[in-house]
Amino acid sequence: MPIVTLTTDFGGADGYVGAMKGVIHRLAPGCVVVDLAHDVPRHDVAHAAWVLATAAFEFPAGTIHVAVVDPGVGGARAEVVVAARGHLFVGPDNGVLAHVAASSEGTWGITSTAFRQPDVSPTFHGRDVFAPAAAALARGLPPEVAGPATCLTVGLPWPRGAVVHVDVYGNLISDVACAPGARGTVSIAGHALPLVRTYEDVAPGALLAYVGSMGTIEIAVRDRDAAQVLGIGRGEPVHLEREGTS
Amino acid sequence: MPIVTLTTDFGGADGYVGAMKGVIHRLAPGCVVVDLAHDVPRHDVAHAAWVLATAAFEFPAGTIHVAVVDPGVGGARAEVVVAARGHLFVGPDNGVLAHVAASSEGTWGITSTAFRQPDVSPTFHGRDVFAPAAAALARGLPPEVAGPATCLTVGLPWPRGAVVHVDVYGNLISDVACAPGARGTVSIAGHALPLVRTYEDVAPGALLAYVGSMGTIEIAVRDRDAAQVLGIGRGEPVHLEREGTS
Amino acid sequence: MPIVTLTTDFGGADGYVGAMKGVIHRLAPGCVVVDLAHDVPRHDVAHAAWVLATAAFEFPAGTIHVAVVDPGVGGARAEVVVAARGHLFVGPDNGVLAHVAASSEGTWGITSTAFRQPDVSPTFHGRDVFAPAAAALARGLPPEVAGPATCLTVGLPWPRGAVVHVDVYGNLISDVACAPGARGTVSIAGHALPLVRTYEDVAPGALLAYVGSMGTIEIAVRDRDAAQVLGIGRGEPVHLEREGTS
Repeated sequence: MPIVTLTTDFGGADGYVGAMKGVIHRLAPGCVVVDLAHDVPRHDVAHAAWVLATAAFEFPAGTIHVAVVDPGVGGARAEVVVAARGHLFVGPDNGVLAHVAASSEGTWGITSTAFRQPDVSPTFHGRDVFAPAAAALARGLPPEVAGPATCLTVGLPWPRGAVVHVDVYGNLISDVACAPGARGTVSIAGHALPLVRTYEDVAPGALLAYVGSMGTIEIAVRDRDAAQVLGIGRGEPVHLEREGTS
Repeated sequence: MPIVTLTTDFGGADGYVGAMKGVIHRLAPGCVVVDLAHDVPRHDVAHAAWVLATAAFEFPAGTIHVAVVDPGVGGARAEVVVAARGHLFVGPDNGVLAHVAASSEGTWGITSTAFRQPDVSPTFHGRDVFAPAAAALARGLPPEVAGPATCLTVGLPWPRGAVVHVDVYGNLISDVACAPGARGTVSIAGHALPLVRTYEDVAPGALLAYVGSMGTIEIAVRDRDAAQVLGIGRGEPVHLEREGTS
Repeated sequence: MPIVTLTTDFGGADGYVGAMKGVIHRLAPGCVVVDLAHDVPRHDVAHAAWVLATAAFEFPAGTIHVAVVDPGVGGARAEVVVAARGHLFVGPDNGVLAHVAASSEGTWGITSTAFRQPDVSPTFHGRDVFAPAAAALARGLPPEVAGPATCLTVGLPWPRGAVVHVDVYGNLISDVACAPGARGTVSIAGHALPLVRTYEDVAPGALLAYVGSMGTIEIAVRDRDAAQVLGIGRGEPVHLEREGTS
């Protein structure tokens, strides 16, 4: 029985995550349900998309990942299953799957009655569509059974070469790829920072740039919150001048 | 081995949830322990009661649900097991089980030594009474063995026809039952709102009323926090004028 | 397959906890991964050390506990496995394991390639060192294989006879041991409080001292937050005058 992970903006104060877990355990007995992240900022689709991308592919192939950050629930956006890199993803077509679907092997709508509850609430597709769909996949139904082949229509808003995520520490994470050990200078918000290896390479309170755990440039302030200190966030341009290549 | 769910106001910064999980895993090896919600506002029994009601019955029959929001721990309130709709509930008799026990099939005190630790701390019954009781039930002991048959003595404070829960989005959830697709007008705090289907049926920032995922009337502000915008909360009267029936 | 617990300051908004879970599930299939606490205040090593101590030993012997509150990641502090009271602990040597290691049965560095990812990010040892180490232990590799025998070098900063933890309720938890049922007077911040049994032994809003669930003196304000009311926190001296022994 495969693993099902859950990523939502439901937080830990309500029964919404619990209801989804109940449905999955009821419809796919023996399933292992794993909390990935539930404190995604409310309605922040881009935040959730990055979170999912940082964690999903660490799981074994065959894992099913459900992402429910869905302000348009019950409206026009579609419900989909995406296959990518040997994993399956379930969620709305609103951008939340855009990162992980960059190398998609297929996308299907969720229209089959085997993938939905008989009565679907217009405001809680996590419980009535996405959890039953994940349970159906966990029971071994192939994604092609979910519904007709389709394409994701909604991407993420940010330009290339920018901060794409601010994490809990206030670290500014960009999409600028860089190999570990590379040398160069990072420009952000008027600062020019030589690449270092880790936080302790600078003094407490100092700005630093380094190759982060996703293989992209990050900017931090040691022992402090860079987003607050610099007063910047997602979308801020980041430029890397590689040493010896300029 | 059945599932045990946990609902508490212990939050995620302390070891209290972990201690309960440890006890259950130690006393009922192989048990599946599921986090339902741990960020219930501190000491908010009514909040937890609703959360439990929204999620518990989605789990398979036979699931054991532990609820620990217990400001009177160690005092006069009793510790109980409640059977309802094929599920078992464990917690204090302080209102936290009042919702799910509406269709109770039996209530028992927890006095048996098989359901409690030998030494019970007066301030942590989650670890020393409720977790061992859940583990005893998970091992297959029937609830009748927990202690003498009894009745819940504490209900919930709210009147009928009111907001009973404010969720993480600030949505105002009432106990006014309504069938999906019904037509009518909802009155709350001086506003009269025609029932719509979902958030996208109104403009961003607009008030709406709809039949929520629990089959009751909810009031929201699209993409905003209705509790903040309206400055109201639990207990606020909600009235539904059904179309064609008035 | 043993249980692996996780204690971090990663919170619930990012993918860091999820990435660790993915690695453990991938490298130790069938493992049971349990969230212990992820909302430890950012970089608060002493807080995490206490949290771990309150929960870890409730689990069955053989459980593997991973603690990642690690502001010095990638710097000079070592990565270690500690054996204590039949449990195994994995984390940095920065104080986070100091409490649970008080009765250590052995400490080893984590240098073996069987306990680390091939490429270790300098800023995410949770994913690249501690999760793989826990998975190796879960697969049955003995801790001696992790690396050379060593000793913890970093302890916790607090003096004896003081508040060592402030919990989510604002309760002030000391390290002053006291048997349940003892009689005496507790002095803290200019207050002298007779020991009582539990919260309901005093009026709402009143200060109280009692023997807490860890067998040490705690100070609380009934239905309120003692840390806020008294304006004190960790490190505040606590003195117990035992009745009949002075």
